Amino acid sequence: MFYIGAIGSLFSPISLVGVVGSDFDMKRIKFLKEKGVNLDGIEIAEGNTFRWSGKYHHNMNERDTLSTELGVFEGFDPILPELAKKSEFLLLANIDPGLQLKVLEQMIEPDLIAFDTMNLWIDIRRDEVEEMLGKVDLVTLNDQEIQMLTGEYSPLAGARKILEFGPEYVVVKKGEHGAVLLGRDEKPFICPAFPIANTVDPTGAGDTFAGAMMAYLCATNDTTAFNMRRAVVYGTVAASFTCEAFGVDALINLTVKDIEARYRQFQAMLEF
Amino acid sequence: MFYIGAIGSLFSPISLVGVVGSDFDMKRIKFLKEKGVNLDGIEIAEGNTFRWSGKYHHNMNERDTLSTELGVFEGFDPILPELAKKSEFLLLANIDPGLQLKVLEQMIEPDLIAFDTMNLWIDIRRDEVEEMLGKVDLVTLNDQEIQMLTGEYSPLAGARKILEFGPEYVVVKKGEHGAVLLGRDEKPFICPAFPIANTVDPTGAGDTFAGAMMAYLCATNDTTAFNMRRAVVYGTVAASFTCEAFGVDALINLTVKDIEARYRQFQAMLEF
Repeated sequence: MFYIGAIGSLFSPISLVGVVGSDFDMKRIKFLKEKGVNLDGIEIAEGNTFRWSGKYHHNMNERDTLSTELGVFEGFDPILPELAKKSEFLLLANIDPGLQLKVLEQMIEPDLIAFDTMNLWIDIRRDEVEEMLGKVDLVTLNDQEIQMLTGEYSPLAGARKILEFGPEYVVVKKGEHGAVLLGRDEKPFICPAFPIANTVDPTGAGDTFAGAMMAYLCATNDTTAFNMRRAVVYGTVAASFTCEAFGVDALINLTVKDIEARYRQFQAMLEF
Repeated sequence: MFYIGAIGSLFSPISLVGVVGSDFDMKRIKFLKEKGVNLDGIEIAEGNTFRWSGKYHHNMNERDTLSTELGVFEGFDPILPELAKKSEFLLLANIDPGLQLKVLEQMIEPDLIAFDTMNLWIDIRRDEVEEMLGKVDLVTLNDQEIQMLTGEYSPLAGARKILEFGPEYVVVKKGEHGAVLLGRDEKPFICPAFPIANTVDPTGAGDTFAGAMMAYLCATNDTTAFNMRRAVVYGTVAASFTCEAFGVDALINLTVKDIEARYRQFQAMLEF
């Protein structure tokens, strides 16, 4: 959530909805407030914040989940503030699909709904994940999640099957190998990752990617297929910063200027 | 060798040097001859042709070598025909680095020397592989080979170390994740793979890649950094055909028109 707020606020006004535990670092709340993020939808509850722990492999691209503790999310009932209800771009970040549905149902008339999930929910709440796929416009999934949902080892073939569930677009997240955007009527858009010499910690890269992508779409208010591609590139570039430092450190002093500079570098690396 | 001859002959005149055993399928020799490949440097010897066997993983991107039988290569002493000696573009395909050196020493004045190798030679002939790196202009290596040579898990950081051995360019081959071209004075060029829905057999993809790349450079007679990028894209597109069928099947009826059409499709998939 912090990644999405931090990166999103660089591009557009943003409201966050969620719950954090009493163990949450309040400096982060202060930071987001200073960035202008609307936090009326953030509840602070007794208990522990949602916590994921895992082990990254040597190549920093594969990881095993060691534990997922829902903490305060277990008793959470999201109530959206008026401002959030009227948002035109909704990003349903990875959490229990039941909660994602509750948020979605309160929205007034969003233009674009993006949806993220993870292996855990596909495993234990498959029906609800599939239901969500029928209600959203864009979904971000990694290879493993696509394989779990469709049985396809080829991410591209799997992504085509995901489109049959309902979304207009699928973004296949491939970590250090980039992302592929697949739309219904379009050829796939292939976006490699921005190459970084030293990956310190990829945690939060997926959230940074989705947050930057949606905030860019919101800022440009343009959901045409071509701008979707640009949004994927912004997401990719933003995520590369997150990987270069532990946790959220890289986002603290990041500016739009930094992102734009890397975007241009990236363009130069892709020209032929 | 067959892959290189078959794909290379589509772009430019080509001479092959090597040895095949009496078990070699002579239809292939006939095919190459009909394609106009100069085979004066091909020896047919008593014994078995070089044979690699391996096991591809489910994702079709990683493989384990099960066996490498040198066969007739063990007693081979390459003697280059006059035409081959005068070639301006030399591709030293993967074989014993001692043999590669013998070929290189007979060349009169090549403009560009490309070099391929494999884990086996890095393992048992490391000194000769390193010596070769000091004598060539361009080297193609996969992540594992770079890691073996440099100790670097980051292919990009490793590729920079490879440049210190001498070559002007390194191509990092990443299988279904594409390739990266790194030059001394240039930003890296990032080339994703052409996405194919069904990878049937990646065997020969590396040879097809290198063969098409070199033949394109030869046909355009242009080794500027920008044309190097284009050559990598041609190599990538050509290799995608090889992966779509078993063995050499995909190359038998392939035309330049097919490659050009896929090149244009690929461009459209990369635009943003």
